Amino acid sequence: MIKAIIIGGSGYTGAELLRLLALHPDVTVVAVTSRQYSGVGVTEVYPALAGYYNGLKYLDPAEIESMECDVLFSALPHGVSQASVLPFVESGVKVVDLSADFRLHDAAVYEKWYCEHTAPGLLDKAVYGLPELHREAIKETSLVANPGCFPTGALLALSPIMKNGLCNAGMPVVIDSKSGVTGAGRKAAIETSFVTINEGFKAYKIGEHRHTPEMAQELSALAGADLNVTFTPHLLPVSRGILTTAYVWLNETVTPSALHGLYKEMYEGEPFVRVMAPGHFPDISQVRGSNYCDIGLYIDEQQQKVVVVSAIDNLVKGASGAAVQNMNLLFGLDETTSLTAAPLSI
Amino acid sequence: MIKAIIIGGSGYTGAELLRLLALHPDVTVVAVTSRQYSGVGVTEVYPALAGYYNGLKYLDPAEIESMECDVLFSALPHGVSQASVLPFVESGVKVVDLSADFRLHDAAVYEKWYCEHTAPGLLDKAVYGLPELHREAIKETSLVANPGCFPTGALLALSPIMKNGLCNAGMPVVIDSKSGVTGAGRKAAIETSFVTINEGFKAYKIGEHRHTPEMAQELSALAGADLNVTFTPHLLPVSRGILTTAYVWLNETVTPSALHGLYKEMYEGEPFVRVMAPGHFPDISQVRGSNYCDIGLYIDEQQQKVVVVSAIDNLVKGASGAAVQNMNLLFGLDETTSLTAAPLSI
Amino acid sequence: MIKAIIIGGSGYTGAELLRLLALHPDVTVVAVTSRQYSGVGVTEVYPALAGYYNGLKYLDPAEIESMECDVLFSALPHGVSQASVLPFVESGVKVVDLSADFRLHDAAVYEKWYCEHTAPGLLDKAVYGLPELHREAIKETSLVANPGCFPTGALLALSPIMKNGLCNAGMPVVIDSKSGVTGAGRKAAIETSFVTINEGFKAYKIGEHRHTPEMAQELSALAGADLNVTFTPHLLPVSRGILTTAYVWLNETVTPSALHGLYKEMYEGEPFVRVMAPGHFPDISQVRGSNYCDIGLYIDEQQQKVVVVSAIDNLVKGASGAAVQNMNLLFGLDETTSLTAAPLSI
Amino acid sequence: MIKAIIIGGSGYTGAELLRLLALHPDVTVVAVTSRQYSGVGVTEVYPALAGYYNGLKYLDPAEIESMECDVLFSALPHGVSQASVLPFVESGVKVVDLSADFRLHDAAVYEKWYCEHTAPGLLDKAVYGLPELHREAIKETSLVANPGCFPTGALLALSPIMKNGLCNAGMPVVIDSKSGVTGAGRKAAIETSFVTINEGFKAYKIGEHRHTPEMAQELSALAGADLNVTFTPHLLPVSRGILTTAYVWLNETVTPSALHGLYKEMYEGEPFVRVMAPGHFPDISQVRGSNYCDIGLYIDEQQQKVVVVSAIDNLVKGASGAAVQNMNLLFGLDETTSLTAAPLSI
Repeated sequence: MIKAIIIGGSGYTGAELLRLLALHPDVTVVAVTSRQYSGVGVTEVYPALAGYYNGLKYLDPAEIESMECDVLFSALPHGVSQASVLPFVESGVKVVDLSADFRLHDAAVYEKWYCEHTAPGLLDKAVYGLPELHREAIKETSLVANPGCFPTGALLALSPIMKNGLCNAGMPVVIDSKSGVTGAGRKAAIETSFVTINEGFKAYKIGEHRHTPEMAQELSALAGADLNVTFTPHLLPVSRGILTTAYVWLNETVTPSALHGLYKEMYEGEPFVRVMAPGHFPDISQVRGSNYCDIGLYIDEQQQKVVVVSAIDNLVKGASGAAVQNMNLLFGLDETTSLTAAPLSI
Repeated sequence: MIKAIIIGGSGYTGAELLRLLALHPDVTVVAVTSRQYSGVGVTEVYPALAGYYNGLKYLDPAEIESMECDVLFSALPHGVSQASVLPFVESGVKVVDLSADFRLHDAAVYEKWYCEHTAPGLLDKAVYGLPELHREAIKETSLVANPGCFPTGALLALSPIMKNGLCNAGMPVVIDSKSGVTGAGRKAAIETSFVTINEGFKAYKIGEHRHTPEMAQELSALAGADLNVTFTPHLLPVSRGILTTAYVWLNETVTPSALHGLYKEMYEGEPFVRVMAPGHFPDISQVRGSNYCDIGLYIDEQQQKVVVVSAIDNLVKGASGAAVQNMNLLFGLDETTSLTAAPLSI
Repeated sequence: MIKAIIIGGSGYTGAELLRLLALHPDVTVVAVTSRQYSGVGVTEVYPALAGYYNGLKYLDPAEIESMECDVLFSALPHGVSQASVLPFVESGVKVVDLSADFRLHDAAVYEKWYCEHTAPGLLDKAVYGLPELHREAIKETSLVANPGCFPTGALLALSPIMKNGLCNAGMPVVIDSKSGVTGAGRKAAIETSFVTINEGFKAYKIGEHRHTPEMAQELSALAGADLNVTFTPHLLPVSRGILTTAYVWLNETVTPSALHGLYKEMYEGEPFVRVMAPGHFPDISQVRGSNYCDIGLYIDEQQQKVVVVSAIDNLVKGASGAAVQNMNLLFGLDETTSLTAAPLSI
Repeated sequence: MIKAIIIGGSGYTGAELLRLLALHPDVTVVAVTSRQYSGVGVTEVYPALAGYYNGLKYLDPAEIESMECDVLFSALPHGVSQASVLPFVESGVKVVDLSADFRLHDAAVYEKWYCEHTAPGLLDKAVYGLPELHREAIKETSLVANPGCFPTGALLALSPIMKNGLCNAGMPVVIDSKSGVTGAGRKAAIETSFVTINEGFKAYKIGEHRHTPEMAQELSALAGADLNVTFTPHLLPVSRGILTTAYVWLNETVTPSALHGLYKEMYEGEPFVRVMAPGHFPDISQVRGSNYCDIGLYIDEQQQKVVVVSAIDNLVKGASGAAVQNMNLLFGLDETTSLTAAPLSI
């Protein structure tokens, strides 16, 4: 059995890791840390998990220092995670970091958007954990930077176009995303209270969301060009899900069926990407609770304009499901282990 | 113009008072207090009110001490409100207290359920502000104890039965109520966060909710008997509304049409109680944003059992709308002033 | 592999059966019927199931007449189901009927509440499929009457009291239940449209809901007395979940810990009933997507009054999950097969 | 009193007209038609309106043929409306048509996107009813083409840029809009059922929504150039509200404060447009139930890129509120009459 520790595990991504790992045949969760809930039973905070983790209590971070494990999941916030995972990486533990700390290759870009980086030496070691783009590298590393939720939806939506050199870099790439509230994390705040969110909808952090450089890094690398990415996140009155509507202009005329073919080609064999039939577009509900990314395509041939819509569950493919998928790869397991349940779409 | 001050006015009931008073032709809000938002513009906290209260800033409570006004609305929490309204009452200001501090006639009962009462001398002066039961007394007093949200729905549902001496006091009176989340007040808490509430539903404070003695006081007074009231509140994943399902057994056989007649009789001429046609029951959506209480009746003649369902908007008829209605009565205005807008049912 | 056919499988319970059976290691769904969607791919109607049932199309009922199978799930409406399952039962196929057609032992009671019964000869053969009450009989039969969603929540909430002879039959048993909208079935109707339901809440079918005699049959049998059951269903603005708040009076004084002990005792070893710690009550969200029934207890010793709250997912424990559980029992499989995933509580 | 008739009045826009006109001091609704509900009381279909329209029954369209009125509101679908309003226009009745039938000046464009136009002679007479753009023309006409809900939000968001000649016509204008479900109209359909919509979100009619030419007509006219408008609507799981996120590139460098100044200038004195302070963006909840359009601006000076976010209530400013505003203008009344209630933002 693979011994797993989750640090910063009382939030939604931590709870989702516990849900997904509950029936993983090869993994046992030996510890979960939380400063806030230290000493409290996991099932007291999450009664839904009663029967799965009955004995497990949240530990103070100090309590796991000398604990042995095979894999560490960090669900700590960015800035905090880097220092916490360092000793584990150094002692040979495989690490999946769900924070932003190791996603950007360039420490200077990281420091511009986030804060000081105290473990820049690990950046070379870290692999950006989107298996659909970097599967082989993930298998070889021991530090996976789990992608951000918005980048996951945007990258899977746009990669086939970028990879095939079809993007007109002189035109904008507009990524208009809409996320459920779990994306804001678990915290007591008027801004995410039921009454504020319910029957509401808004854009936020316009022009300044930290997932922008992450998208730019990966899309530009694929396209081999500096892309002008405009990203606007919005907050949906739902718990889970991200729908991304991406607008991109092509540098040549492509027919709908040719474009569809490129998507099918890139994602053939991918267990968690479902390209929908032409004329069909996803609803976030159809991936709820699952690790799928569903994609629909619209092309205006004459204007060489493409609208791509992707749907993911931000807590699964956008966070904890991807983390388990990456862990499966790190340990040579079937990549889909414990991730095959059908979505709870209704 | 009647000069109004609202103390403790940054929560939902305060905001709702501001909404309802925005177009009141006879009232001008001269001050609103809030410790938390002292110095902040009302429209910064509530952008919806832009254009209505552009100059108004929340004041620290100390800033209104020497301010003149004709009416004071207290939206402070119980325990805090009693001391705050005292100087106003003593200086002749008319007061509508939305807290629980003056609802229970008996200080001992108050102290059992709430906390110490520091102004018990005002209890005799205070009138329980349900106009459908105590309209004339409200007109004569200068201290109105605005009813609790759950008692409002329950009392309007059951009064005709109690008043007509039909309740079988040997059987239980079961009041099963379901409230929207604004009933929990405006606060940053995981318990009332969107993700916790959304797609959820639960009972809470079973057997120990503080509105129980308030219901018992008024129902027993009407019935002329000590009633065995069982009250269970539930939390609905909606912003506004209380549906009360009340079960009561009668001490004699009453036909459906006779019972319906008693309800029509008691509420004839009441501007804010709408008794529905036989076989029809209310949905909370049909009173949203309005001061109505809609009522539907079911009777099982053979079992002498009645199920009454009432719907109110907890922020309007259950709090701020009732407060404005009471204020209108206190000043001899048309009782319905500024309360006549049709519900936003869709 | 057990070959399964689902008839009437395009509604929510059919879709939920497909979701739950998707990864069942011992079952393969060989056919699903639907008059409305005959010829249409299952994944066209339910895109969430893409990848699980790619080849499967809904068949016209006539197309399965000569098809071989080991188990038949009927998700047809009551009245229609009885005739449709008859030939299968007669030919030795094991049948789990999710309709109401075989739940009531007495054909006369069925005909009073529903319609004519055309297969009364099967009533003796049918076992009421609540494993917590009738596990051994289920294993022996070949026709399981899958319980109604409301009865499931109510019976699990009240059985320990009834079974231990504690119910005061002279007092009412009040069952106030609140269900998500999937309980109303999948149909195009203004009554269940988003705009009607959203931000709304209401009681319906007061005094006349068809699940009442089903509750009375089972509760009275357990209690060994004719109980006066009052049942009121309500419609919650959520997709899934039933919360039942049951009020019952005892015929003797029982301490909270003694009562809790009786619940623990009855449900010890039950894989899908979780009795919560004293003072804790369930939220429907904590069982979402799972086969659990979570139960919380309140007792007013002095008044000999008990309030029991139970939560289930109406589509799982209240319908399709129970059907799979029953099927597992019919075939001697581990009762929990394909039902062990943790709830999607967030 | 102005006598008003509403045709096609049983849907959401009809109900919203009734809500808004309920307290209009100068208008009395003399008739409402509905084929579906002919003979049924308005308050039976909409119990929320009990007490406002107690005597009013829906009439069959034939019943109003000889009825006198001063203003006709048509809430009929496009294609049907044109023929129905024709006799009223010809007999001198002032008409506000909420359908799309008279919005496009060019019958050929109409016929391309909709269907045959049977009253093209009225197109010259009709005025596009966005008072912020065409107030004086509205006052002079007797046929107002009430704007579409999406165009209203988009046009108010972008007009100041277009009018001031700042739009770079060589770059795209991307309009990404998100609408509540009432925008889909009142109908029985699985697509708009609660279970389908709840916790879901999707794009629809990508590249083919009929509001596109309407936006292009008005924006191009303002800009004096043919604009490349890309419009994508999405369906929000809320009842009311449209948030529009518009992306536009400028043909010169403009500072944030200069841009903000242009918006303040254009909308100064407009009773229903609220330009938010720099750095603030609207939430649809802050305009709910009201006739406001709230607007927030983001500018990336270096990239000459502007993101404008606007929020309206699709049933009020996006439909029935605008219709009442237009009617007020047609009759020389205060434009804001019966539209001044504060939003129900909570």
